[in-house]
Amino acid sequence: MSNIAIFGAGSWGTALAQSFASYGHQVSLWARNIDQVAKMNDNRVNAHYLPGIRLHDNIRFTADVNDTVGVDYSIIAVPTQAQRQFLADHRDRFSGQEPLINVAKGLEASSGKRLSDIYNEVLGDVDQRYVVLYGPSHAEEVGRNMPTVLVAAAHDEALAAKVQQDLMNENLRLYTTDDVTGVELGGALKNIIALAIGMTVGLGYGDNARAALMTRGLAEITRLGVKSGANPLTFLGLTGVGDLIVTCTSGHSRNRTAGVQLGQGRTLDDVLAHMGMVVEGVPTTRAAYERAKELGISMPIVSHMYEVLFNAADVNQAALALMTRSGKSEQEDYLN
Amino acid sequence: MSNIAIFGAGSWGTALAQSFASYGHQVSLWARNIDQVAKMNDNRVNAHYLPGIRLHDNIRFTADVNDTVGVDYSIIAVPTQAQRQFLADHRDRFSGQEPLINVAKGLEASSGKRLSDIYNEVLGDVDQRYVVLYGPSHAEEVGRNMPTVLVAAAHDEALAAKVQQDLMNENLRLYTTDDVTGVELGGALKNIIALAIGMTVGLGYGDNARAALMTRGLAEITRLGVKSGANPLTFLGLTGVGDLIVTCTSGHSRNRTAGVQLGQGRTLDDVLAHMGMVVEGVPTTRAAYERAKELGISMPIVSHMYEVLFNAADVNQAALALMTRSGKSEQEDYLN
Repeated sequence: MSNIAIFGAGSWGTALAQSFASYGHQVSLWARNIDQVAKMNDNRVNAHYLPGIRLHDNIRFTADVNDTVGVDYSIIAVPTQAQRQFLADHRDRFSGQEPLINVAKGLEASSGKRLSDIYNEVLGDVDQRYVVLYGPSHAEEVGRNMPTVLVAAAHDEALAAKVQQDLMNENLRLYTTDDVTGVELGGALKNIIALAIGMTVGLGYGDNARAALMTRGLAEITRLGVKSGANPLTFLGLTGVGDLIVTCTSGHSRNRTAGVQLGQGRTLDDVLAHMGMVVEGVPTTRAAYERAKELGISMPIVSHMYEVLFNAADVNQAALALMTRSGKSEQEDYLN
Repeated sequence: MSNIAIFGAGSWGTALAQSFASYGHQVSLWARNIDQVAKMNDNRVNAHYLPGIRLHDNIRFTADVNDTVGVDYSIIAVPTQAQRQFLADHRDRFSGQEPLINVAKGLEASSGKRLSDIYNEVLGDVDQRYVVLYGPSHAEEVGRNMPTVLVAAAHDEALAAKVQQDLMNENLRLYTTDDVTGVELGGALKNIIALAIGMTVGLGYGDNARAALMTRGLAEITRLGVKSGANPLTFLGLTGVGDLIVTCTSGHSRNRTAGVQLGQGRTLDDVLAHMGMVVEGVPTTRAAYERAKELGISMPIVSHMYEVLFNAADVNQAALALMTRSGKSEQEDYLN
């Protein structure tokens, strides 16, 4: 059994803590907010982010990162746009030897960078310690130990295999890969497609349109991935197809829900004000839009969502444009 | 505008007839059953297979295949397991020059063969006339002209492009490819995965498990496809991911519905007796199981569904076995 520190007590960090604790690991769950830590300590529930689940006794709560020095694994579940600052604030704490497992998805909005780049920039070269753990996973289900399958990606696949061996349990199955780039991009970009799917659902489009748009979305993600050095087959896997499916077809997804509200005619400001949680697809749309321009890649769904989100483009016209693109060859679509 | 004959007035043949007729084509819709033809003629509705839709005046109904000689396109929408006999019964009618567009999905249960093989066996070499038109498409939506995107596959991609140019309309978008093998296998095998997904839903599994099983299912389909000469990228496309999504996530799918009932503890005979329509995934499971054995490919979902369907294996144990397979490398999974 391992000693695990999890940084960030949102729904995902808390759900992972519960899963690992349920299978005998000792987990320290860190939250920035001292009041939240005190409440979780008193009530053994994360009422705001993962209500209805009694948190396992193997979880201890802390607001002090130095309380977690010497663990076997550090899992970082801080929101994507806050990770750079978080790592910089606690550079010394993360200068040890244990693997750093990032579970937040997205691209840095201001730079378009992937999180592995940010880790290296802030902490020095940590490629040999860096792992991403992504896949189709609503926190609400993982926190209840419902069967879930994730992929652990590390540049050194032996490290991914060690994570798999140490942390896999009966209800949280892990696959491994060395395609960090592909996994990071798949996990980040699917949130943009979820926003677009939600928008068409809000506008009254049907299941056929949804499946077509998800497929075209996967083609866009693959194009950007291949151009960035990823293995195209990664996008057929758990962080490509798998994560896209769970995000785009299920009522749990915040990104899809935000999209539905956009499709129903609400403004972005209004939608975000009422969500009360991070909608990662919004900053990631901006990052992907810039990245696609740099690389000279056509990403029509990203472009249309960018116009809807940041230039108040009409949702009806954007959806219509996406569904009535001129027909072409399907293979050509992975290249252009 | 084209003259089009459609053979088979089930829900899919009728929906395509309606889509093409709505955009100005002249359509002859053939049904075997003279009574059904008379009723559609009188009421302009296909009450059993596509209720609630008034059929367009550009559709004429016939029970005589020779009534359709000289059309620009023949579209065959007869159920998969009946196609060999249908083509043999009407060999002369199909000895002309017009493209033959098959829209039925599945493998022949008795032989494991793809439909393109059956066309060549029965009609002589028709590779240069043969087209498959597949994709994520519930008939109920196509019949209402809700936006849908399909892929036209032909060995000669110029023929696929001609089909695209002639038949695409504002709400039925067509892509092209020359990967007939990949498209046929994707369209056929996804029905097996839909049965498995339905089964886990019937057993109470959640969205994470569903997405993981769809992803592993896609890996199995890709393995069989690659070994059969298909392009792996085809399975990232409309007849791979796209069709899998629409079949596995939507309430319209007969295969998924049959799976749900199996998961709830009903026997196969009981389920089939109450469906009243063909459940293509059942014979295709047998065909794929035999084919995987021949080719020496691991297809765990197909194998477990084979045991459930034909050897009365326990659904709980089958689902558990699928969700708790030992973890391994994700890329390796496309090869073994």
